[in-house]
Amino acid sequence: MSKALPKRSENYSEWYNELVKRADLAENSAVRGCMVIKPYGYSIWEKMQRALDDMFKETGHSNAYFPLFIPKSYLSKEASHVEGFAKECAVVTHYRLKNDPDGKGVIVDPDAKLEEELIVRPTSETVIWSSYKNWIQSYRDLPLLINQWANVVRWEMRTRLFLRTAEFLWQEGHTAHATSAEAVAETKQMLEVYATFAQEWMALPVVKGVKTANERFAGAEDTYCIEALMQDGKALQAGTSHFLGQNFANAFDVKFQSKEGKLEYVWGTSWGVSTRLMGALIMAHSDDNGLVLPPKLAPIQVVIVPIYKNEEQLAAISEVVAPIAKELKKRGISVKFDDNDAFKPGYKFAEYELKGVPVRLALGARDLENNTVEVARRDTKTKETVSLQGIESYISDLLDNIQETIYNKALAFREENTTSVDSYEEFKELLDGKGGFILAHWDGTPESEEKIKEETKATIRCIPLDQKEESGTCIYSGKPSKGRVVFARAY
Amino acid sequence: MSKALPKRSENYSEWYNELVKRADLAENSAVRGCMVIKPYGYSIWEKMQRALDDMFKETGHSNAYFPLFIPKSYLSKEASHVEGFAKECAVVTHYRLKNDPDGKGVIVDPDAKLEEELIVRPTSETVIWSSYKNWIQSYRDLPLLINQWANVVRWEMRTRLFLRTAEFLWQEGHTAHATSAEAVAETKQMLEVYATFAQEWMALPVVKGVKTANERFAGAEDTYCIEALMQDGKALQAGTSHFLGQNFANAFDVKFQSKEGKLEYVWGTSWGVSTRLMGALIMAHSDDNGLVLPPKLAPIQVVIVPIYKNEEQLAAISEVVAPIAKELKKRGISVKFDDNDAFKPGYKFAEYELKGVPVRLALGARDLENNTVEVARRDTKTKETVSLQGIESYISDLLDNIQETIYNKALAFREENTTSVDSYEEFKELLDGKGGFILAHWDGTPESEEKIKEETKATIRCIPLDQKEESGTCIYSGKPSKGRVVFARAY
Repeated sequence: MSKALPKRSENYSEWYNELVKRADLAENSAVRGCMVIKPYGYSIWEKMQRALDDMFKETGHSNAYFPLFIPKSYLSKEASHVEGFAKECAVVTHYRLKNDPDGKGVIVDPDAKLEEELIVRPTSETVIWSSYKNWIQSYRDLPLLINQWANVVRWEMRTRLFLRTAEFLWQEGHTAHATSAEAVAETKQMLEVYATFAQEWMALPVVKGVKTANERFAGAEDTYCIEALMQDGKALQAGTSHFLGQNFANAFDVKFQSKEGKLEYVWGTSWGVSTRLMGALIMAHSDDNGLVLPPKLAPIQVVIVPIYKNEEQLAAISEVVAPIAKELKKRGISVKFDDNDAFKPGYKFAEYELKGVPVRLALGARDLENNTVEVARRDTKTKETVSLQGIESYISDLLDNIQETIYNKALAFREENTTSVDSYEEFKELLDGKGGFILAHWDGTPESEEKIKEETKATIRCIPLDQKEESGTCIYSGKPSKGRVVFARAY
Repeated sequence: MSKALPKRSENYSEWYNELVKRADLAENSAVRGCMVIKPYGYSIWEKMQRALDDMFKETGHSNAYFPLFIPKSYLSKEASHVEGFAKECAVVTHYRLKNDPDGKGVIVDPDAKLEEELIVRPTSETVIWSSYKNWIQSYRDLPLLINQWANVVRWEMRTRLFLRTAEFLWQEGHTAHATSAEAVAETKQMLEVYATFAQEWMALPVVKGVKTANERFAGAEDTYCIEALMQDGKALQAGTSHFLGQNFANAFDVKFQSKEGKLEYVWGTSWGVSTRLMGALIMAHSDDNGLVLPPKLAPIQVVIVPIYKNEEQLAAISEVVAPIAKELKKRGISVKFDDNDAFKPGYKFAEYELKGVPVRLALGARDLENNTVEVARRDTKTKETVSLQGIESYISDLLDNIQETIYNKALAFREENTTSVDSYEEFKELLDGKGGFILAHWDGTPESEEKIKEETKATIRCIPLDQKEESGTCIYSGKPSKGRVVFARAY
C-alpha cells in the first residue's frame, strides 16, 4: 500500500502484474511457470466455480474425476491432437527417488524408470474417451454428460499470472451423443452457458463466434468461443466449446448400438473455462486505484469502517452496525466490519479500494447523531450520505445497480472500440492505435489469415454467430467475402 | 445387476471391490494405480467436500491453491520428511515430446531435460512453507489459516479403489502460528472437526487419539488421528492432524517478529482427509445387497418407483407424486421419480438397493385407491404402508431416523468388537478371530511395537485421547505400562 499502482495509460502490462500481486490475488511460485493462488484470489475463483457448477448441473451434467496422468501412447491416437499438445507437456519418467550416494540430498533412482512415460494431462479427451469406450454400449447409455474440475499442465515458456501459466485450474466438460445434431446442440448450449456466465456474473460482454480452422482446438471439427475485449484494446478468449465430431470415438474405438440395431461411432463435445477468467475479470473492469469487482463475484461485498477517536465511540458505532450487518447477511450479502485498531481509516479505504470491495460504509460520531452513514461505491468512486433508515434495502439495490453499471461500462467500451474497416492500411493503423475489435472482410483462406497474423500480430478472434451477410472484399487479398469477421490482437 | 454381489462373510475384499464397481462409484483406469471416480461416486465426494469446507470456513480457514510440482531439492530440506516421501513419488524429468524419427508416435525429447527434476506433490508442506516465508514477517501476519483441495500422488505398488491409489483427491490444511500452544490447539480443533464430520455426516463413530512416534507423519512432532472400525474387524485411519512444531519453519527459514520485537520461528500444523473416506463410508455400513448410505451424504435420498400396467395408471400416479416430490425438494430432500419404461419395478428396486438410496417409495393403483404409499428403508430393509396424508413430514423424520440408526448400528458393532486383553496369547488369538479394536498395555517402546507388528501385523492405531490411567504390564515385554493403547490390523 506504500506505493501507488503503475497507471494503465503508462504501462498496462506492469499495472496488471502489480495489481494481481498487491491485491493478494496470486503470485509466482518458486516452481517455474506455476502460480500460487492466494486466499483472496481463490475466493473469487470459488464464486466462479459455484456459479458455473450450478449452471452445468441445471443443464443435466454430472461431475466426475479422471486420472492426472496420460500414457504417452494415448496422445498419439488422435493425429491432430498430438500435434497440438505433445510440444508443451510435463513428462513423468520415473517413480522413485533415492539418497544421493554422495550424501547430498536425493537423486532420481535409475532403477525406477517407467516402461511407458506418463504425460501430466494438458487436457483430458484421450484419457476420458478411453474410459467412455467401456461405459458406452447402447443408445441407452447416451447422452453421457460429464464435467471435471481439475488442474492441467501445458509447458509455457513465457508465463503471466492467470493469463498463461504452466499449471492452471479449469473445468472440462466431455459429452458423448448418438447423433451429430445432438452434439452440435450441446456444443452451442455450453457456449450459451459461458456467455451467460460472463455477462451476468463477470459483468463482461462477449462476442460469440466460431473459430477459423487455423485456430481450432486440436482434434475438433469446430471450435466455438466467447471473446472479450480488455481495456488496452486487446482481445481475450474467455471460453471455448468444441464439437469433436467422431474423432475421439474413432481414435478410441467408441461405438454404440443405435435404436435401429446398427453399430455406430459416438459423437463428442468438450468445453472449458479456466483460471484465465480471473485475468479477464481483472483487466476488463479495474482502474488505477485497484480492482473493480462485480458484486456477484466479490468475496466481500460491503465493508463497514468505523471512524472513532476512543473506545466509547467505537462501542457506540458497533452497536449501530451490528443489526445492519446481521440484516445484510440475512439477505445473502457478505459484510466485513473492520474495527482493526492497527490501521487508520484512510489506510483501510485505500486497501479496500485496491481489493475492489464494491460498497464501503463509513460511520463516525457525526453520523450517529444524524442517523446517517457515508456510502462509497467502488466502481464510480462516488460518495453520498444516506439515512440509516432502510439502509439494508438501499445497499441491496445499490449492489444490483453496480453490477449493471459495470456491465454497461464494459459494453460501452467495447462498442466504442469495435470498428468496421475496409482497407488493410486502415486496419494496420487502427491496430497500432486504439486497437479493439476490428470487423473486416476476409476471403476465408488460411493463407490470408496467416499473412495478416505474420504482418500485424492480429488474429481472427472468431466468425461471429450473428454475422450479417454482406458482400465485400478481403482486406488482404482483395478476393470476395460474404461477411465480416472479428480481428484483434489478443492475449 | 445380473449377478449377486459376493457375500461379506465369504470374501470381504472381493465384496468391496465388486460393490465399488457395480454401484458406479469408481473403477481402475488404464493408468496404473490411478482410479476414475464415476459420477455417482463423485457426487458423494462432493457432498463430503461441501460439508467439510463449510466446517473449515466456520473455523476461520480460507482456501488457496499451490503448485502441483515440487522442486526435488525442497523435499530434502526437512530431514524426516524426505525419508517419508522420497520413496514413492512421480518424477517429471522432461518438458517436451517430439515425433519419433521412426514415424511411430512420439518420444521424449532428450533436449528438453529439466535442470532440476520436479516431484508431483505427495503432500504440500514444502512448497507451502516456501511461500509462507514471504507471507509472514510479523506477529500481525499470524495465524495464517489456509486449506487446499487438491490431487496428490504417492506411487503405490498395491492399489485398491479409494483405499490406496497412486493419485487421490484430498484437502490439506496448513496453518502457521506465533506460539506452540496455539498450534497445538489448532491441531486438536481440526481433529475435532474431523471427528464431528465422521460422526454426524458419515454416521461413523471414531476413536480420537495420538499416534506413536513410529506412526507419525514424516516431519511432525505429533500426529493426531481418528480411527474407525470396518465390518471385517480391521481399522481404518480416517483423518490425521499434525502438530509440526517449528520443523518446517526451520527448514524453510520462516521467522516472524513477535510483539516483543524478537525474531522467532513460526509454529505449524497440517491436517488432511482424502477420498479414502469413501472407502470407509462403504465398508462401515454396506451389506450383501449393496451400499447403505447415510441420508446426509446420499446423492439421491428418496426414490419414487411407480407400479403401473398402462399409460393411464402412470399418468394418475405421476399426478399424485408431483406435489409430493415438489414439497420434499422444498425441504431440501433430493428426490428421483423413476418412470423409466425400459426397466421393471423389481429391477429398479434391486438397482436402488445396490446404490444405497435410503428411502424408496413405491406407488401402485391400489395405493391410489387407498391414498397410501409403500415406504421401504434401505438400512433395515423393512417396508410399511403409510398414508399419503403428511407423507412429507413422515419422510423427513424417517431420514433423520435412518441417519441415527446407521450411526448407532456402527457404534454397537464397534463396542462389540472392542476388547481388553491382558496377554499376548489372547491378543494373537483375538486378531486371528474376530479382530476389532484391542485395548492392551504397551511399554511405550518402539521396539515392542515393532516386534508386535512383525509377529502379528497389528499396529498401534493410537493412544486414545480419553485413555484411562491404569497400571499394567506390556503384553509383549511384561514391562510396566500406565494405560492401554488401541491395537488393530488396519487398512
